[in-house]
Amino acid sequence: MTGDAMLIQEVATRDGFQIEPRYVETADKVALVDALSAAGFSRIEVSSFVSPKAVPALRDAAEVFAGIGRRPGTVYVALVPNPKGAERALAAGVGEVNLVASVSETHNRANMGMTPEASIEGFARIMETVKGAHVSTNATVATAFGCPFEGDQPTDKVIAQVERYLALGIGGVTLADTTGMANPRQVERLVARALAIVPAERLTLHFHNTRGLGLANVLAAYGAGARRFDAALGGLGGCPFAPGATGNICTEDLVSMAHEMGIATGLDLDALIGLSRDLPRLVGHDVPGQVAKAGRPGDLHPVPQAA
Amino acid sequence: MTGDAMLIQEVATRDGFQIEPRYVETADKVALVDALSAAGFSRIEVSSFVSPKAVPALRDAAEVFAGIGRRPGTVYVALVPNPKGAERALAAGVGEVNLVASVSETHNRANMGMTPEASIEGFARIMETVKGAHVSTNATVATAFGCPFEGDQPTDKVIAQVERYLALGIGGVTLADTTGMANPRQVERLVARALAIVPAERLTLHFHNTRGLGLANVLAAYGAGARRFDAALGGLGGCPFAPGATGNICTEDLVSMAHEMGIATGLDLDALIGLSRDLPRLVGHDVPGQVAKAGRPGDLHPVPQAA
Repeated sequence: MTGDAMLIQEVATRDGFQIEPRYVETADKVALVDALSAAGFSRIEVSSFVSPKAVPALRDAAEVFAGIGRRPGTVYVALVPNPKGAERALAAGVGEVNLVASVSETHNRANMGMTPEASIEGFARIMETVKGAHVSTNATVATAFGCPFEGDQPTDKVIAQVERYLALGIGGVTLADTTGMANPRQVERLVARALAIVPAERLTLHFHNTRGLGLANVLAAYGAGARRFDAALGGLGGCPFAPGATGNICTEDLVSMAHEMGIATGLDLDALIGLSRDLPRLVGHDVPGQVAKAGRPGDLHPVPQAA
Repeated sequence: MTGDAMLIQEVATRDGFQIEPRYVETADKVALVDALSAAGFSRIEVSSFVSPKAVPALRDAAEVFAGIGRRPGTVYVALVPNPKGAERALAAGVGEVNLVASVSETHNRANMGMTPEASIEGFARIMETVKGAHVSTNATVATAFGCPFEGDQPTDKVIAQVERYLALGIGGVTLADTTGMANPRQVERLVARALAIVPAERLTLHFHNTRGLGLANVLAAYGAGARRFDAALGGLGGCPFAPGATGNICTEDLVSMAHEMGIATGLDLDALIGLSRDLPRLVGHDVPGQVAKAGRPGDLHPVPQAA
């Protein structure tokens, strides 16, 4: 892929399924991850090694990792909230651990039951745990574009958290718009600041489409030099504070946009559309993605007969 | 409004209601237009003087124009497909007629029953009809970003159609992405070409969110210098070729994006959210807009109690 290409990490089986009330069977999760591998993803966030009590939807994380095929060139990522989760993830053979702490103290307490400071101290222990194992590391700054409890977060505080991640030797950094509060100008500014300290190939942007701006924010981030984005098949995911609101940006809508703009992704859009159309069978409801409903822009229609 | 401000024309009662299977009562249409006037729109596309047989949903266009209040500073627009429609529109006291012809011959034949050439010849007769009346004029290039039957349309052909509109003395020009095929790079290029011959205060962009790119396309157009956009409350509207696909870009999502970016619109976002939340009562189904579901980005939530 060239320097203009977009690298998309698929997160539906983690950030999507974690909020679904219907349990997706392990075999269905494995089949979906295998199909995503075949569609060309170089990165898939497969599951999360959180407490099964906290997130029962992902209680089969180890079984899923045991079941999936490993496509050469694809990194299979797991979200890991604490050192114990890291040990489980290593035992399951993950390719990368993704750590997470919110920049907002209120959000981190609500989400993780501790201060961001305590979360980041845990990161240091996790880095000790994974040392010597053949896994790469990434850490997410959650609520980087705003907190649903506290509102705006100071850019300097976000950047300071990124610097702490880098000082710990963490390989990649994700800036997450956890509840879809970002706007394109803010994105442009924060991405520019982040790229001054993290190279583009190690910086990921994680947007939600909660207020309809997901792809506009991608466009702004891309324009500012970002090249790596999280997205969920079908736009799965959600926001606990906005029933009915859409979730993550939709993978196939993003891929369609990129390809129409002449930006390579390495992904098979037709395969993604097919997988997205199968999601309602797994989750039991319609999903927000548009391209799976409308077809690709280039899909032509028969001319209606004159009345 | 300054040169950075965004001028949004509301089109829900025309481009939205025209596709709704449930008839919206005249009194409800009038009340909605009046509420939109109060929310601050300087332009509202109220209805369409098409054949009542072709678009029964808008058969009450004259009654709606007779019923609405006229807020000083707001232009009340009607879509007009032919000279007969223009006469009806003038009799109803519209403030502006919006003419329409597709750049794609196949689409214009399917939509208007004639060639684009014949449509544009009709424009000349309409310009004669409205001469001396106190109405302004606008004309739309439909399928300017692609035709669902023919695919891509040559930029030169789009620009030539704009030039013909200008040569007829038509006051404003709209470039319409009629079925949501546009992408941001294409938008940037076509807007730049159009702005070389039409000043920004006379050029409107009309995007659909059919493939999820509506606001990304607005962002690209704004970046290229466009300042006027059509949008529909709640994201009403649709695409006859994509059942389940979303319609026009959503007014309140666009206004939220603009305000978060520091771009003035002159519109009352809270009022718009209230009106959008009332739409399901009028049309009998959920609407695609996101901000009406999720709330504004700045709407903070109570902190959950620790478990």
